[in-house]
Amino acid sequence: MPTVPLLTDAEASAPARAVFDDIRAKRQTDYVNNFWRALAHDPAQLSATWERLQQVMAPGALDPLVKELIYVAVSVANGCSYCVHSHTAAAKAKGMTPEMHGELLSVIAMASQTNALATALQVPTDDRFTA
Amino acid sequence: MPTVPLLTDAEASAPARAVFDDIRAKRQTDYVNNFWRALAHDPAQLSATWERLQQVMAPGALDPLVKELIYVAVSVANGCSYCVHSHTAAAKAKGMTPEMHGELLSVIAMASQTNALATALQVPTDDRFTA
Amino acid sequence: MPTVPLLTDAEASAPARAVFDDIRAKRQTDYVNNFWRALAHDPAQLSATWERLQQVMAPGALDPLVKELIYVAVSVANGCSYCVHSHTAAAKAKGMTPEMHGELLSVIAMASQTNALATALQVPTDDRFTA
Amino acid sequence: MPTVPLLTDAEASAPARAVFDDIRAKRQTDYVNNFWRALAHDPAQLSATWERLQQVMAPGALDPLVKELIYVAVSVANGCSYCVHSHTAAAKAKGMTPEMHGELLSVIAMASQTNALATALQVPTDDRFTA
Amino acid sequence: MPTVPLLTDAEASAPARAVFDDIRAKRQTDYVNNFWRALAHDPAQLSATWERLQQVMAPGALDPLVKELIYVAVSVANGCSYCVHSHTAAAKAKGMTPEMHGELLSVIAMASQTNALATALQVPTDDRFTA
Amino acid sequence: MPTVPLLTDAEASAPARAVFDDIRAKRQTDYVNNFWRALAHDPAQLSATWERLQQVMAPGALDPLVKELIYVAVSVANGCSYCVHSHTAAAKAKGMTPEMHGELLSVIAMASQTNALATALQVPTDDRFTA
Repeated sequence: MPTVPLLTDAEASAPARAVFDDIRAKRQTDYVNNFWRALAHDPAQLSATWERLQQVMAPGALDPLVKELIYVAVSVANGCSYCVHSHTAAAKAKGMTPEMHGELLSVIAMASQTNALATALQVPTDDRFTA
Repeated sequence: MPTVPLLTDAEASAPARAVFDDIRAKRQTDYVNNFWRALAHDPAQLSATWERLQQVMAPGALDPLVKELIYVAVSVANGCSYCVHSHTAAAKAKGMTPEMHGELLSVIAMASQTNALATALQVPTDDRFTA
Repeated sequence: MPTVPLLTDAEASAPARAVFDDIRAKRQTDYVNNFWRALAHDPAQLSATWERLQQVMAPGALDPLVKELIYVAVSVANGCSYCVHSHTAAAKAKGMTPEMHGELLSVIAMASQTNALATALQVPTDDRFTA
Repeated sequence: MPTVPLLTDAEASAPARAVFDDIRAKRQTDYVNNFWRALAHDPAQLSATWERLQQVMAPGALDPLVKELIYVAVSVANGCSYCVHSHTAAAKAKGMTPEMHGELLSVIAMASQTNALATALQVPTDDRFTA
Repeated sequence: MPTVPLLTDAEASAPARAVFDDIRAKRQTDYVNNFWRALAHDPAQLSATWERLQQVMAPGALDPLVKELIYVAVSVANGCSYCVHSHTAAAKAKGMTPEMHGELLSVIAMASQTNALATALQVPTDDRFTA
Repeated sequence: MPTVPLLTDAEASAPARAVFDDIRAKRQTDYVNNFWRALAHDPAQLSATWERLQQVMAPGALDPLVKELIYVAVSVANGCSYCVHSHTAAAKAKGMTPEMHGELLSVIAMASQTNALATALQVPTDDRFTA
């Protein structure tokens, strides 16, 4: 259960509905997922998040699939169940193969363990890493 | 300051020194960074970590630079200062441009904020993400 | 499912039941929520937590609603689902309006993203912040 | 040491310098703190962050000091040293007294411990919290 | 719902099934828990994780029950629901009494709150702790 | 640098000094470490933390060294540098050998990586773990 009701199109304010419509148009789907329907209680936050997300995830020096893999990695490290599900699904939709998924998880697992070891040992940063 | 002394080659046990030598050979450098010198107090952990790291970070379905970007992302989310420095340096050495670095940080920032929003709202996972 | 059974009044020890009764009296309700029923397996922890909670959340230099907002923020950052639900409900009961809720979430989202950016960039603290 | 050089005004691009100037004008100070100088390598991220920060932290249903307290709480939970320093300083500048600071820390400490307990016990959410 | 199907014995590849069989033999049970069935999509990760887990959790300078308590503590701090459940169950199977469970939770709660306080106060490390 | 000055005995209030004196008496040392000197700005928090810490860390169903190992594990997972240093030092003072330290770190590393894998895979909890 969410901490606020998920707003249907009928319940959403006009500015929120405009974002819903833009999501539909840009993603070429009728479906608006739960995250946006929960955010719709605050149209300013909804709009700011949607606008920035499009800029950040657009093709650039990194391709959109790589960006999704990074998004999944952060979501796992932050323990966000919803985000792990939604961005794993998005990565698959953008071409993530089972082999890529396996390697993504292996890197996340490796990093998680060496992060813990470096923190437990309080390893000082080598000068050459900050040159 | 680390919680254990960083072991020099002379102080390390034979099994630990063998890992140091393998690091030098595989990386084609004389330099062994602090993480391994701190881990050397436990040669079994040192060896297991080094062996698995090579397997995980090798070219595969994902290329090594993409894997470094994912490593940085996890390290940031886990707040590991040493790891952020060492893997940002590694990513640069593997070809991360300033543009890629900027985009990596933008995705990490975006994910961090939507992770927080989805958790605060306790958004239920859409059925289609788990189909 | 909890990792221990939730204790009913009949199952709880006398010291635990005394805390249940105090919760009912102080909160003027018959309802004792699941957190306390799970903690009741360790009456010393139950009592220490309940006593300290009352001191910490009492009116002081900060008013109780502000304290609840801070509580929600920490619970979100720590990814505690139960705590997000219970303290969001408590904040509403203490007067949090939808507008306040929206602003609370916006600050949490903003902080989450700048926390990540500052960590990724390993920004050194300005001298003036520690003067 | 940061992972990128902190840009001086002379080193920053024109769009980044424009943000620096806006920070100076809005905050009525000559000082631009390190966070912005590190972010300046990516003028789009710099500008997006600064613009959204002003909207989020402006007076609204919550006053700016309360927002700073929430910001500190999230920064502590995320373990961001830079952010703890900068937002504690900002809270003091906006009127946080030592008593308020003490109460803020007490709530953060209380939430941190009950978050851990609820997670360790995997307490199921009470129906009434999601009604 | 997992992000990948849990593989039955029939669906698992030969190398993955070999790990399942080894789990059954070493644990003297017919049951293979969900974690391994999800990991089975990547037999290399499955095998590496299972092999290392046995080495790490074997009796040594610390006994297996103490190791399980530490495992639970890390899982709580990382907010991993599955891991809290599975390792709490494992600790009980290895002899954790209700008294030990209560004390484990009290230490986790205490550490969580002093971790937050030390981070909020940015307490500098005493020289004597690093001597 | 801390976010508040560390209080000397002369600067501390009478109730805070009384806690300092109790720390000295119970620990049979003249030294009061920085954590308590920073907490001393809020004598109620100082006293509550010190009192509860003694109860929690006293011998019980778990011995004090095991409790310190758990404390270190939580501190690592929460990324608290001060706490990692102070509780690693405390564990050594209570008899942690280098072998125990190595095994502690191996368990923390193992748990960190399986926590990440279980979260990334969103593995559903097996019924038998909650029976």
